[in-house]
Amino acid sequence: MSSQSMRQRAEALARQTQDTICAAVEKLDGARFREDSWQRPGGGGGDSRVLQDGGVFEKAGVNVSVVYGAVSAPMLAALELATIADEHGELAFFATGISTVLHPQNPHAPTAHANYRYFEIVRHDEPTQIVRWWFGGGADLTPSYLVEDDARHFHRLHQQACEHTDASYYPRFKRWCDEYFRLHHRAEARGIGGIFFDRLDERPAEALLTHCRHCAEAFVPAYLPLCEAHAADPFGERERRWQQLRRGRYVEFNLLHDRGTLFGLHSGGRIESILMSLPLTARWEYDVVPEPHSPEAALVEVLREPRDWV
Amino acid sequence: MSSQSMRQRAEALARQTQDTICAAVEKLDGARFREDSWQRPGGGGGDSRVLQDGGVFEKAGVNVSVVYGAVSAPMLAALELATIADEHGELAFFATGISTVLHPQNPHAPTAHANYRYFEIVRHDEPTQIVRWWFGGGADLTPSYLVEDDARHFHRLHQQACEHTDASYYPRFKRWCDEYFRLHHRAEARGIGGIFFDRLDERPAEALLTHCRHCAEAFVPAYLPLCEAHAADPFGERERRWQQLRRGRYVEFNLLHDRGTLFGLHSGGRIESILMSLPLTARWEYDVVPEPHSPEAALVEVLREPRDWV
Repeated sequence: MSSQSMRQRAEALARQTQDTICAAVEKLDGARFREDSWQRPGGGGGDSRVLQDGGVFEKAGVNVSVVYGAVSAPMLAALELATIADEHGELAFFATGISTVLHPQNPHAPTAHANYRYFEIVRHDEPTQIVRWWFGGGADLTPSYLVEDDARHFHRLHQQACEHTDASYYPRFKRWCDEYFRLHHRAEARGIGGIFFDRLDERPAEALLTHCRHCAEAFVPAYLPLCEAHAADPFGERERRWQQLRRGRYVEFNLLHDRGTLFGLHSGGRIESILMSLPLTARWEYDVVPEPHSPEAALVEVLREPRDWV
Repeated sequence: MSSQSMRQRAEALARQTQDTICAAVEKLDGARFREDSWQRPGGGGGDSRVLQDGGVFEKAGVNVSVVYGAVSAPMLAALELATIADEHGELAFFATGISTVLHPQNPHAPTAHANYRYFEIVRHDEPTQIVRWWFGGGADLTPSYLVEDDARHFHRLHQQACEHTDASYYPRFKRWCDEYFRLHHRAEARGIGGIFFDRLDERPAEALLTHCRHCAEAFVPAYLPLCEAHAADPFGERERRWQQLRRGRYVEFNLLHDRGTLFGLHSGGRIESILMSLPLTARWEYDVVPEPHSPEAALVEVLREPRDWV
């Protein structure tokens, strides 16, 4: 293992995680993923797996990408690294990661997202000369209806995963998640959070790869039991409509704010794989205000003021 | 009339256009608009009218805004005017306009958008000192199924409106519209176009206000007859699904590219009024490719290669 480059080992983690998540989702859902391989014109490509309109999931996307090539100016700007080309001349990048978004059918089952990635910027003329490298990632939960036990379970398992590496990671990455997954224009969070980190290079790459592995391995046990538990919860038109409205917010976040989506669009990734994260269906009604003390109002309240869950 | 300021006259045009469109929509639809007035914390406000789940329209929003106040750095950046503050010191802005988006129920009836606006940037210390002013606007049609006669009718009436002012305007603004309403990441247009212009100050304000009036007056006769004609067209699950997918694209354009939406979000406009343009429902399926020679494929073809309609 140790003779492999960090690029290869990070890709292997992404592929392994894809297999694990897809196997677990198929087992629960009954339906099968469709797999597409795609090539990126500038270098690299990916494998997208999508399951649509299944027994438990309305849409599940699990994408691995391994992309590399020349660094463009908009890409550097999106990374807020506009000036490093002055210092190092022409640059190239390498990025590999796993990205998954799962939207269940039942409004009482939460949507979840997880993403772990390794990134390198190297000199174009000397690709072994690494100018910057980092790991990024995280996992977060977006319920339409708040179930406090679910939120605690999801956070607790990610806390345990972080603690293998550093006891300060969970509180730090939990706060970072609350800050990042925020619809500023709505003054609310996308969901009830989880963990988020980006540009992590403060420990040896070896240790951070292990950290990502622990977190990635926590995702299936942290999330799938919640889907299983709520798959058969009774619901009616009211719950379905509310779920659709919340999915509208999910779309707003991903198209207006999400760095991964915008990086993908700027770096010439495959559009269908980048937008795989969008829900199958969504809804925008004008000025919906939930009734006071309703379950819908309880969700909005927790989105306004993020809470501690462990 | 001539004793009124351009600000007042532009606002009067916006309000008149709102009344005209709402009266015509209510007459056709049978349902009534709900009206909300809102205040912008930094100055000004607006009147939003929304009709939802009507007999003919799934969602119709007609918004007038009159906003003013301090110019922020992100606002100048969004306007690509980052440097004018260096020259003139602290700045203030004034903007008034009408913005409407109409999404019909029937998949054979097209969505339409129209927007006409007047904008001023003035010195903060001397508000009568206008640093920049311009008119912007346009109207465009977004069908789920291409009806060539509809496209021709919509374009012809906007051509006639433009020709009152300048015979070069329609061809110029038609091309501008095709360029502006483009989903670059999809390599397709949002719809079959119409007219679009921005930062227009090449004639006296008086003449450009009249130009906007002619265009705004063309909207109802250019668009509503199409909705009336298709309101009872038969359709099934297939057409409804395709309409929902096309609405997903509409959401993508508005959240990723539309200057008006992004300006609204940056300038602290009222979120429910800014996002009034989003359809009631939308859908994202993975990698949908219409069957060759189907009506769905015919639409995609015209979106790939904009056509001349008059």
